[in-house]
Amino acid sequence: MIETELGSLRRSHYSDELDSSKDGTKVTVMGWVLTVRGHGNISFVTIRDKNGDIPIVAKKGDCPDEVREKLSSLKPHSSISISGIVKASDKSPSGYEIIPSEIRVFSEVQKIPPFEPLAKTVKNIDTRLEVRPIDLRRKVLQDIFKARSRVLTSIRDYFNEQNFTESNTPKMIATATEGDAALFPIFYYNKEAFLAQSPQLYKEQLTMSFEKVFEIAPIFRAEPSRTNRHLAEAISIDLEEAFVDYNDVMNRTAEIIKISISTVNNYVKENPDTEFIIPKMPENIPQYSYDELVEKMLKADAKIEWGDDLYPVNLKKIGLEGFYFIKDWPLGP
Amino acid sequence: MIETELGSLRRSHYSDELDSSKDGTKVTVMGWVLTVRGHGNISFVTIRDKNGDIPIVAKKGDCPDEVREKLSSLKPHSSISISGIVKASDKSPSGYEIIPSEIRVFSEVQKIPPFEPLAKTVKNIDTRLEVRPIDLRRKVLQDIFKARSRVLTSIRDYFNEQNFTESNTPKMIATATEGDAALFPIFYYNKEAFLAQSPQLYKEQLTMSFEKVFEIAPIFRAEPSRTNRHLAEAISIDLEEAFVDYNDVMNRTAEIIKISISTVNNYVKENPDTEFIIPKMPENIPQYSYDELVEKMLKADAKIEWGDDLYPVNLKKIGLEGFYFIKDWPLGP
Repeated sequence: MIETELGSLRRSHYSDELDSSKDGTKVTVMGWVLTVRGHGNISFVTIRDKNGDIPIVAKKGDCPDEVREKLSSLKPHSSISISGIVKASDKSPSGYEIIPSEIRVFSEVQKIPPFEPLAKTVKNIDTRLEVRPIDLRRKVLQDIFKARSRVLTSIRDYFNEQNFTESNTPKMIATATEGDAALFPIFYYNKEAFLAQSPQLYKEQLTMSFEKVFEIAPIFRAEPSRTNRHLAEAISIDLEEAFVDYNDVMNRTAEIIKISISTVNNYVKENPDTEFIIPKMPENIPQYSYDELVEKMLKADAKIEWGDDLYPVNLKKIGLEGFYFIKDWPLGP
Repeated sequence: MIETELGSLRRSHYSDELDSSKDGTKVTVMGWVLTVRGHGNISFVTIRDKNGDIPIVAKKGDCPDEVREKLSSLKPHSSISISGIVKASDKSPSGYEIIPSEIRVFSEVQKIPPFEPLAKTVKNIDTRLEVRPIDLRRKVLQDIFKARSRVLTSIRDYFNEQNFTESNTPKMIATATEGDAALFPIFYYNKEAFLAQSPQLYKEQLTMSFEKVFEIAPIFRAEPSRTNRHLAEAISIDLEEAFVDYNDVMNRTAEIIKISISTVNNYVKENPDTEFIIPKMPENIPQYSYDELVEKMLKADAKIEWGDDLYPVNLKKIGLEGFYFIKDWPLGP
């Protein structure tokens, strides 16, 4: 066996498994340094792991000098392990602190990232992307990614409860699946192929044998527009169902939106310091026909002819916002 | 609202919601025709839906003549709806039959597919792929797809229980992530890009903020070899974890294999007529070091030098089969 840096050292507890009831327990915690404060003979260090924060108090006499000195020298974002004893403490907001006896530094930060780990907003997107793994340590992004992960789970749970079969369709395809969406061309060995912009045709074929199928997977659209409604690559939640019509599909879509919103609401309940703006879901999502909206737009002097796409600027002009379905779209030009 | 073919007609029951206790109930069932038998004044039709089979018995006098005649004229694989009354029946293996009063034919088969819907094996792969949606109606393929869908769910359940965060990493990337794997080039607008052959680098970066992450998504490898170990496109189950070493990763992998096998075993228990060959999982998956195997291969007169890849032919030569880990691989040539 090859010796690894970690050897036999392992985390014994996550932050959320520690409290004053663990007083006297020997523990090993791991994470990255959030804050270091100290004056002379005492160092207060907070380390953060996947689940929360852990207070470390290194006081001269209580712990080895070299541990205290190492701790006080660390810059935020350094990755460390601390072994020590839990001590119940009324002074600590978490009700306990750890008196360290050993420290292991896995990665010592040389240069502090150009923003604070606790900063809520960071203005420069380029700065953020340059140190993206550190940027993602900011709480607002942690919350977005974690809530998103839960939403995916809740949507799949819904599909499974409703007896949908999960499937994976090819992303490298020979021809376009939808009329006018631009495709990314690939060199497929010595042939031309494309990246799939939708699993539509595959899904339809699969309903002939599985009736209800779903896929959550990347789609690719080489559309020149770079608005937030046009992404070159995105994750698409696709369902298809046999023996139903478009009314049932709208109902499914409404249910999936409802489940997603309630999952995010639950996340916020469990994490009260989360700052999300969560859209309100109406009891029933309003449905408008294409004809009805075109008529409204014409009355509002929008630049549109019957058969045109319904552009956001025109939808705004007639005051359409929030959740809505537009149905009975023209089949052809 | 645009009138759809289905109108207000909806399925009232799936096959597995019907039995003799429903005697006298008016139902609407939907599915595709599995078999049609009949002689003169009686027709026996079995239709199959997502969950199983439904026996329809159309006897002269019990149901409208045109319904009986339409039913008896149908070819297998036609897609239909039947409304009628459930009748408990000792003669039917399922304990009941449906006396039809109405039929709706959504799709009437003109030409019978070149193999029986109940065929266990069909020799010609080209024939199968030509009518793949119908091929997928064969039970063995239904079982494979449905068991696969459950395995994906059970693996994600494991990741969620273990507090992994699901993430999605880009599939269109600017450079290679692994040394020698061949990449599919893409035209990304006016630049060259590639399809990701692994989320490896992204996963590693994500562990800096989320510690434990997973992704189940397509990977793309333009490798010329076309063995079943080399696919141009595949679904990869990727996990990455901070504060652990490769021993922990092997343990995770073993757990995921164990969960997958037990999920398939449970599927077979619930569907006893499933014919799967399920690999046995040893209590502990054996681990071999690269050095150890090269030495064995040299002793077995295999054509290999230290530093070479370990090819299947050489692994076979030293009798390696089933599940095993090969660890402590050389870092460079």
